[in-house]
Amino acid sequence: MLDYAALAALSEIVRRGSFEAAAAALGVTPSAISQRIKGLEERLGQVLIHRGPPATGTGTGLRLVQHLDQVRLLEQSLGSGLNPETGPASLRLAVNADSLATWFPPVMTALPVHFDLVIDDQDHARDWLRQGQVSAAISSDADPVPGCDATPLGAMRYQALATPEFIARHFTHGVTETALKAAPAITFNVRDALQSRWAQQVTGRRLHLTGHMVPASEPFARAVELGLGWGMVPDSMSQRARDAGRLRPLIADRALDVPLYWHVQRAMAPALAPLTAAIRKRAAAELRP
Amino acid sequence: MLDYAALAALSEIVRRGSFEAAAAALGVTPSAISQRIKGLEERLGQVLIHRGPPATGTGTGLRLVQHLDQVRLLEQSLGSGLNPETGPASLRLAVNADSLATWFPPVMTALPVHFDLVIDDQDHARDWLRQGQVSAAISSDADPVPGCDATPLGAMRYQALATPEFIARHFTHGVTETALKAAPAITFNVRDALQSRWAQQVTGRRLHLTGHMVPASEPFARAVELGLGWGMVPDSMSQRARDAGRLRPLIADRALDVPLYWHVQRAMAPALAPLTAAIRKRAAAELRP
Repeated sequence: MLDYAALAALSEIVRRGSFEAAAAALGVTPSAISQRIKGLEERLGQVLIHRGPPATGTGTGLRLVQHLDQVRLLEQSLGSGLNPETGPASLRLAVNADSLATWFPPVMTALPVHFDLVIDDQDHARDWLRQGQVSAAISSDADPVPGCDATPLGAMRYQALATPEFIARHFTHGVTETALKAAPAITFNVRDALQSRWAQQVTGRRLHLTGHMVPASEPFARAVELGLGWGMVPDSMSQRARDAGRLRPLIADRALDVPLYWHVQRAMAPALAPLTAAIRKRAAAELRP
Repeated sequence: MLDYAALAALSEIVRRGSFEAAAAALGVTPSAISQRIKGLEERLGQVLIHRGPPATGTGTGLRLVQHLDQVRLLEQSLGSGLNPETGPASLRLAVNADSLATWFPPVMTALPVHFDLVIDDQDHARDWLRQGQVSAAISSDADPVPGCDATPLGAMRYQALATPEFIARHFTHGVTETALKAAPAITFNVRDALQSRWAQQVTGRRLHLTGHMVPASEPFARAVELGLGWGMVPDSMSQRARDAGRLRPLIADRALDVPLYWHVQRAMAPALAPLTAAIRKRAAAELRP
């Protein structure tokens, strides 16, 4: 068996960023923490912590932290007679930014764990799942990673939106290739291809858009409302602005549906069953079938 | 002089993630792009692009992209008689997440550039400024980086908030050390020390909080409203929930003020003057003096 006291030390260091903070959190001395980590590293023949500051986990270190979380979660699901009273387990999940900004938060009440959310804004969810750095993920990737199952959740509907003034200024002669190339688009980050995909569907060509990058969901929508550019905004986030006429679609009835999937490490599926049920229920209500 | 055609190619590759996309955006062949980059790398004796996929800039590569943006911005500020018509320049800025989620977006209308925002959620702004990877930054760091000037903008006021039910359940006997250790806190990420700082001010001791991590501003506030934990929320973001009684301070009149600063690369200050003026004006209205 692994040395779980050492894994607990490793986990606190990675979560708190220093040996000192981990020691204080566990109520032991920093030198006791150092020894546990050193012992674990020698036994495994691998470095587990980049000493920093801040101290961060190596790939193997992060994998072991995740393993500890999973064991704790499995212990917790043994039921109250068997599991030691150590407080809620941690659960590390990758969630895409727009889900986190819209339908996801309420499902966090379905499982008594401490959620450690990471935003998958660069298609890293696959790697994280494969390397075991997250227990589950919500992503637009349909293919399950080996060792994981993927459940379809439905689709988020996006529309290409802008203010009426922006549309009047940039798209007087319709949403043409020339107009799309000249009008500033708002993108989330360098990996966000939604705007280009929509432009390609409309014009039949891959266009090279220019504009602003705003890497947060609500500020992205606000930048569109401020008339800084056009952008793909989820319907659930733009409802009020559309109803009030502050935002309009560049083209009516040209939505883009992005299907989402719930990926779960197979070994974790039983412990996560209540969360999976809550996610499916909420997705059925909030996403398009 | 540097080869600016090669820098333009470098910039498009970094912003678009591939040689092919950069070639298409510039209307040249991928092999022309490759040659420009190779030539530049040979002349400088340094690798500028990690080939990927996706292609990403090395430290020096990113520094050069930033340099190109700055030259373009300076050209743009020469005025309409002198600057070549190449469309808006790009401006890379680091902004802390809570500013981006609250008062910052409207200032983006003050300067006709394409904003390329990066979120400083891990105190990276100093390094980015020092390495010249951003032209300016909004951060809570008071010390100017060499070559930059820092202007105080005022403070964001945070309160430790939770739902009335959460407070009744976890803080029946007041906000004691024991209660704070047991009640789940919500933190933004491993670097977010606001909750611990507030707990330390209240109890006089460094406590080791546990709870959830929600690395996005609006979802953070929503997690607090869902009763998942207590957390430090900016007053400007919690106004409505406080007025409606959905959120309450754990302790009345125990706010935490976080001063913010506008850091600008000195060479860029003239070109950024209209943005600086807009930021100062909006900060004067939205932040505390």
